[in-house]
Amino acid sequence: MRWQVVGLTLFLLLVLGAAKSRHGSRRGHRTYRRYTPDWTSLDARPLPAWYDEAKFGVFVHWGVYSVPAWGSEWFWWHWKGEHQVLYELFMRNNYPPGFSYADFGPQFTATFFDPEHWADLFRAAGARYVVLTTKHHEGFTNWPSPVSWNWNSQDVGPHRDLVGELGTALRKRNMSYGLYHSLLEWFHPLYLLDKKNGFKTQYFVSSKTMPELYDLVNRYKPDLIWSDGEWECPDTYWNSTNFLAWLYNDSPVKDRVVVNDRWGQNCSCHHGGFYNCQDKYMPGSLPNHKWEMCTSIDKSSWGYRRNMVMASIASEEEIISELVQAVSLGGNYLLNIGPTKDGVIVPIFQERLLAVGNWLSINGEAIYASKPWRVQADKNSTSVWYTSKGPDVYAILLQWPENGVLSLASPTTTSTTEVKMLGLKGNLKWSKDPVQGLLISLPLLAPSDFPVKYAWTLKLTGVE
Amino acid sequence: MRWQVVGLTLFLLLVLGAAKSRHGSRRGHRTYRRYTPDWTSLDARPLPAWYDEAKFGVFVHWGVYSVPAWGSEWFWWHWKGEHQVLYELFMRNNYPPGFSYADFGPQFTATFFDPEHWADLFRAAGARYVVLTTKHHEGFTNWPSPVSWNWNSQDVGPHRDLVGELGTALRKRNMSYGLYHSLLEWFHPLYLLDKKNGFKTQYFVSSKTMPELYDLVNRYKPDLIWSDGEWECPDTYWNSTNFLAWLYNDSPVKDRVVVNDRWGQNCSCHHGGFYNCQDKYMPGSLPNHKWEMCTSIDKSSWGYRRNMVMASIASEEEIISELVQAVSLGGNYLLNIGPTKDGVIVPIFQERLLAVGNWLSINGEAIYASKPWRVQADKNSTSVWYTSKGPDVYAILLQWPENGVLSLASPTTTSTTEVKMLGLKGNLKWSKDPVQGLLISLPLLAPSDFPVKYAWTLKLTGVE
Amino acid sequence: MRWQVVGLTLFLLLVLGAAKSRHGSRRGHRTYRRYTPDWTSLDARPLPAWYDEAKFGVFVHWGVYSVPAWGSEWFWWHWKGEHQVLYELFMRNNYPPGFSYADFGPQFTATFFDPEHWADLFRAAGARYVVLTTKHHEGFTNWPSPVSWNWNSQDVGPHRDLVGELGTALRKRNMSYGLYHSLLEWFHPLYLLDKKNGFKTQYFVSSKTMPELYDLVNRYKPDLIWSDGEWECPDTYWNSTNFLAWLYNDSPVKDRVVVNDRWGQNCSCHHGGFYNCQDKYMPGSLPNHKWEMCTSIDKSSWGYRRNMVMASIASEEEIISELVQAVSLGGNYLLNIGPTKDGVIVPIFQERLLAVGNWLSINGEAIYASKPWRVQADKNSTSVWYTSKGPDVYAILLQWPENGVLSLASPTTTSTTEVKMLGLKGNLKWSKDPVQGLLISLPLLAPSDFPVKYAWTLKLTGVE
Amino acid sequence: MRWQVVGLTLFLLLVLGAAKSRHGSRRGHRTYRRYTPDWTSLDARPLPAWYDEAKFGVFVHWGVYSVPAWGSEWFWWHWKGEHQVLYELFMRNNYPPGFSYADFGPQFTATFFDPEHWADLFRAAGARYVVLTTKHHEGFTNWPSPVSWNWNSQDVGPHRDLVGELGTALRKRNMSYGLYHSLLEWFHPLYLLDKKNGFKTQYFVSSKTMPELYDLVNRYKPDLIWSDGEWECPDTYWNSTNFLAWLYNDSPVKDRVVVNDRWGQNCSCHHGGFYNCQDKYMPGSLPNHKWEMCTSIDKSSWGYRRNMVMASIASEEEIISELVQAVSLGGNYLLNIGPTKDGVIVPIFQERLLAVGNWLSINGEAIYASKPWRVQADKNSTSVWYTSKGPDVYAILLQWPENGVLSLASPTTTSTTEVKMLGLKGNLKWSKDPVQGLLISLPLLAPSDFPVKYAWTLKLTGVE
Repeated sequence: MRWQVVGLTLFLLLVLGAAKSRHGSRRGHRTYRRYTPDWTSLDARPLPAWYDEAKFGVFVHWGVYSVPAWGSEWFWWHWKGEHQVLYELFMRNNYPPGFSYADFGPQFTATFFDPEHWADLFRAAGARYVVLTTKHHEGFTNWPSPVSWNWNSQDVGPHRDLVGELGTALRKRNMSYGLYHSLLEWFHPLYLLDKKNGFKTQYFVSSKTMPELYDLVNRYKPDLIWSDGEWECPDTYWNSTNFLAWLYNDSPVKDRVVVNDRWGQNCSCHHGGFYNCQDKYMPGSLPNHKWEMCTSIDKSSWGYRRNMVMASIASEEEIISELVQAVSLGGNYLLNIGPTKDGVIVPIFQERLLAVGNWLSINGEAIYASKPWRVQADKNSTSVWYTSKGPDVYAILLQWPENGVLSLASPTTTSTTEVKMLGLKGNLKWSKDPVQGLLISLPLLAPSDFPVKYAWTLKLTGVE
Repeated sequence: MRWQVVGLTLFLLLVLGAAKSRHGSRRGHRTYRRYTPDWTSLDARPLPAWYDEAKFGVFVHWGVYSVPAWGSEWFWWHWKGEHQVLYELFMRNNYPPGFSYADFGPQFTATFFDPEHWADLFRAAGARYVVLTTKHHEGFTNWPSPVSWNWNSQDVGPHRDLVGELGTALRKRNMSYGLYHSLLEWFHPLYLLDKKNGFKTQYFVSSKTMPELYDLVNRYKPDLIWSDGEWECPDTYWNSTNFLAWLYNDSPVKDRVVVNDRWGQNCSCHHGGFYNCQDKYMPGSLPNHKWEMCTSIDKSSWGYRRNMVMASIASEEEIISELVQAVSLGGNYLLNIGPTKDGVIVPIFQERLLAVGNWLSINGEAIYASKPWRVQADKNSTSVWYTSKGPDVYAILLQWPENGVLSLASPTTTSTTEVKMLGLKGNLKWSKDPVQGLLISLPLLAPSDFPVKYAWTLKLTGVE
Repeated sequence: MRWQVVGLTLFLLLVLGAAKSRHGSRRGHRTYRRYTPDWTSLDARPLPAWYDEAKFGVFVHWGVYSVPAWGSEWFWWHWKGEHQVLYELFMRNNYPPGFSYADFGPQFTATFFDPEHWADLFRAAGARYVVLTTKHHEGFTNWPSPVSWNWNSQDVGPHRDLVGELGTALRKRNMSYGLYHSLLEWFHPLYLLDKKNGFKTQYFVSSKTMPELYDLVNRYKPDLIWSDGEWECPDTYWNSTNFLAWLYNDSPVKDRVVVNDRWGQNCSCHHGGFYNCQDKYMPGSLPNHKWEMCTSIDKSSWGYRRNMVMASIASEEEIISELVQAVSLGGNYLLNIGPTKDGVIVPIFQERLLAVGNWLSINGEAIYASKPWRVQADKNSTSVWYTSKGPDVYAILLQWPENGVLSLASPTTTSTTEVKMLGLKGNLKWSKDPVQGLLISLPLLAPSDFPVKYAWTLKLTGVE
Repeated sequence: MRWQVVGLTLFLLLVLGAAKSRHGSRRGHRTYRRYTPDWTSLDARPLPAWYDEAKFGVFVHWGVYSVPAWGSEWFWWHWKGEHQVLYELFMRNNYPPGFSYADFGPQFTATFFDPEHWADLFRAAGARYVVLTTKHHEGFTNWPSPVSWNWNSQDVGPHRDLVGELGTALRKRNMSYGLYHSLLEWFHPLYLLDKKNGFKTQYFVSSKTMPELYDLVNRYKPDLIWSDGEWECPDTYWNSTNFLAWLYNDSPVKDRVVVNDRWGQNCSCHHGGFYNCQDKYMPGSLPNHKWEMCTSIDKSSWGYRRNMVMASIASEEEIISELVQAVSLGGNYLLNIGPTKDGVIVPIFQERLLAVGNWLSINGEAIYASKPWRVQADKNSTSVWYTSKGPDVYAILLQWPENGVLSLASPTTTSTTEVKMLGLKGNLKWSKDPVQGLLISLPLLAPSDFPVKYAWTLKLTGVE
């Protein structure tokens, strides 16, 4: 059994990526060490530095679920996996009997999809990386996968290589490119077969998952692989460690690529590259491992929903607060939008992204390439979060104190201590707090003179 | 010739509205005066008071153009009337050859249309009236018009009475209801026939326009008729004065109904009820006739466009500034949104409307039922606009003065003069300006303590 | 009330047809007589000769019902008028909820419609005239009617003038052209209004029926008007006699046009031109008025049905037997086919039509321009039918006698009597029957030597 | 490389069919002999008797090509493989830009598909077996293939198991069931990959062709496998001999299954079960190997074409003549029809099939289970074909001799020689021909008394 799985993976690897020759030509540089396909070895790999420095990325959920664009990107599962009454009613009320999920495919037109516009928007948002769903649990691939015939964006719907086009546009702008990839596919007949066999067979993995992962890496040379859909099976079923060993040792992106932690049951939060843990996970205190919070502007869905209402849209304040908190706690922040089936990022998402970009244009100094400080949240206030860069400390203030005087307990002042607000000229007045820390007099200004409307950053130099 | 036109109009009137009996039964109350079908008489009618008090309304453009949702609501005309290259390309690239405008009809589904939600949103926006397109220049009627068979929202697409459903929801909330109605229809064969005849025949008017206007009034009892599409023909072609005489004398809404000024060539800005003059018209100084500025959140279109970008979306500041200026100059402000073919008002429009509502919740006192003051814009500042209510004067400040001291030239202070900012407790300090007017010290506050983010209202009492 | 109805009809007449001027210019030729709008006068008009000579025509039912193509051309009525369960199920099983009949329109593509091919086929079938449904009870017009906007074949579906294109092709081949026209429209809102008023109003007639009938005549100059849909109202409602008086006196086809008998309740079989009486009506004996049998190759429907089975298809023998019987009894025979929504006449219909054409190529002498003989069916046989032309008598034999000897009771032989079989050379042997008539020895031949496979024609000369 | 191919095939075999256990449990019965995967061994297998006895089958081409239903079932190839101008025009004129072949899938509805009706029709046609396309070169499978996800009739379009449903209906009527299967798929990415590799890789065969062939056999237990699409590659690429060895040794249909000869380049007409040689192949003289002529009622296409005209439809005479000639020459006759996308067999095909059935109801004695006689075509006539059954000889006469006397050179008469015409009572008169053979006096009858209209069968007993 193992033979043919390895065999098939291997031959597709050989064919599709010519990885062996690359490996051979570079071997001289790396004689000292190769990763072995086990977590002890793989987990020991240092995280490439670009990822921690990037801090802020945009997540894009786009697929056939963008056609019904109702409920969430789990539409198919809720409808045909769980038979939820509301989904069955939605279909009965709006489509002819017998209409199948695959029948949505031709309506995924991407009419207005302009990857240059998307990339401009993401850059204006201050994102340093973008993660696109290459394939969600529905199995539809947003690139011409050779093992997903007639269920990919080249054969059906857009008739375009969405993954490739967005990548090209991002690279022009020196942005990093991450590929989301779901290991499982809810309704793939070979996955269902393996499931029926208690995952003792790997027909699905050998003929679908692995060929596609290798193809994605060899074809698009991603900076990041955002794995998902791992939860029903152990990593041994998914063949994850073999893939990662190849990715780290021999792939064309072995020096730069970053991965997350969803590679098999019990992997999440324990193995892999950075940790996502659960969706929308935010730790209570500083973790000892690089992590990322992923969340969505539409709080109720990752994929586009035609009937969104404001109540489910995160406000600018909420988004920026989360970004600040995540970075302070050592994390990255990956903010999701779901484009329409036409390839449009609707204005409310544009507005939120641009608001983040606007905020970062003033406060980015405290975010990009920052490190957690020795304290994360000041104990005098639930609304002040620290970051640092070298000797400088940044205190980001989510709420303005009532009396205009900010009390910070954590910094220890010195004779050279100075305090500035990013976006304002001049130093702020401060005085040593008799008990601990310092008291800072915030400026009283006309409303339009504040550098930002919320989340003001104080830069403290000469503190300890 | 005139006989049959009058005749047809008459018989449809009789049949559809039973207007005669109403007229008979009420004649007693009005023996003193009846309007005659000429502008001298009609223009003399006083404007019902509700309209001037309402100040702020929402305009809704919804029709078959919401299906292509590209370019603007003039899609059909640009495509088939003017043969604009971009429109022809759009069709060639996205639809099969021979696809006609009528073929869009079945895709106008209104799937998610919930008039209760719309009405809730409009009320939360602070709108006191709503104007819906019952029929735009495309001729598609959003109600089951008996003379628009198979080209109306009951027979095709939504299969619902959109005009009726929204009206019911608005009335529950005591909001006034206006009906937009286009006199012309670009491609109606009888209109084209009349045009070919130099508008010496009125086949279109007698068999389409007039029956529909009577039907709308009798069926939905609108508070406002927002006429449009008048520009190619004189009011004598349109039979406008006859209609208005009936509307003012005998219709079921004769006491309350308000109309605008688009009833024939050269009517606009000269005859009718309130004046719209051109679209988006804002006068330079106080007019001597009640007027309304209509404008659209999407600056490039009144109908929904799928590929809107932020650059074309009016900001909250722009919208509120225009509202303030319009009211100060004696106008009403009618702000347009275009719902999707699904019946959704997309979040960016929700957000803008709610922002206006939020602003009005603080500052509405200076807007609703206000009157223009003796001065509109303070001469010391281009950004202060006045309104008044009884003896009280409101100065609405679009920009915060740099030094925190506001200089107003126009008010003459007295011994009882007091100044407040709406949304803040207590009086503001002020002093007489040595030259003219007064100087007001604006408060210095934490950013979140300002009652609104822009367009602060100062209420001046005891000034002259 | 009458004024405006007459008025509207009149003005449309004036506009669309310029009939007045024609009438004026020709008045000189006809000073002797004009028809008045009453049956006594109208019924007295002689039937133009071409019609009786033609004998065989093809009937074409084509419309939006060709899209569902299920049940029959009464689809809409059975579904929405009668709510038949099977129709409701059909819709529920195959279309999304809310799908309306109008939504079928865009699918009526006429992709393959080639009027030249149709006309070639009809001529090869031996038809001398063709009757096309210009508008069935659904109201959809197969030409660009100016009073059926967006519910006609130019605006919706084919985007072509089907009536015009077929007419042009037929005229090239010197075939006569008949236009089927339904007076009623099941669901037209003005028709429903008139119905609600007990047909005391004529809004529908004045604004739809009459304008369209005049337009059809003026535009296409038909040789025949095949009226239908008359049954719910008297001719006074339909304004039929006025129309016919104009048609006979002043229309551009006044000398050649033929009409049928469906012009109002109680008209059928009593007034008009030729009589259809009921659908598929065949009289028991020779009527004293010209008549026509209309029938359909698909016995269960006039419009195309996608799921036809052979059991409902008339055989060649049945069709030719009916044609022979109808002609013998003084009638014409109008044989219907229903094209597909693509504009195709499916092969089974082609085959039946060509079979008739093949039979007529041998036996047409006994059919075209023939007259009924003094006897129609020979009393010795139920399967021998007579026609005549001048002194010649044709006995058409539907069944071959068992012993090969045909006994005819009706002809009286003379010294010059000769008998031939059409399609065979030489005379047949015969002998005088001792009792009455004659005995004819039919030839014994190899199967392929018979001139036709059924319905053999004997030409008798020198009989009385 | 070979390992994993064998491996994959094997594991899918194990999983899908549990073939191993069957094989084990039956091994005892067959110790004497097993077929080896080479042509010498496989060609030596005797043909199961049912096939030769059946003589007449119906072929059914049904797939996504039934949706455009234009050109032929090679639509996709002519369009996208060869870029034929007419096909590109057809698409440009009738579909939106970017419309792909896969987009036709959802329109393949099979709305009216009733396998019971089909099976009734095929039985009434006298067919003893039916061959359905399970998958044509387009790759769309008419059953839920586990390796053709979202490109099969369960996931897309009909949402039914077409192969299974027809099989069940045929088995109820004791008819044999054949499955057409195309080895190649024009546009399958793995097939294109193998082709690019000069067919030195077998990714397509191992992951698509073989799993599907095994699945078809195990799931539907066909009586016949009609292979096609072999021509671009040798049988070694297709793995054909391994499959056939399994089919003959271990499959659930090993004792009864029949296959044809299209299993690799140069196989056709040389290896396999019965021979088809080319499409529509009819040999000039008696071959020494069982063969079958396949042909189509629509001479221009195997799949349904919406715009068929009579000129391309084979007549009843042509069909029956070919059937007679094929059987006389030792062949079977497989007559094709293409159902519509709705699942309808259109009336012209019904009519032709029923005509064959009608002819066989009289003459089947000379066809079913017959054997070629020592002479096939009588040398005196090009239109007399012989068959035999035991001592009886059947002479089938395609043309009736002019003088009613048939001269047969081949039979040698004896004292017991008798001649009958099937369908007529009594013996025919005959006399010994002075030179060779005999002279038979054919009956002279009324046209309707001939037992059939063409292809009369004379049964000769007591001849040599």
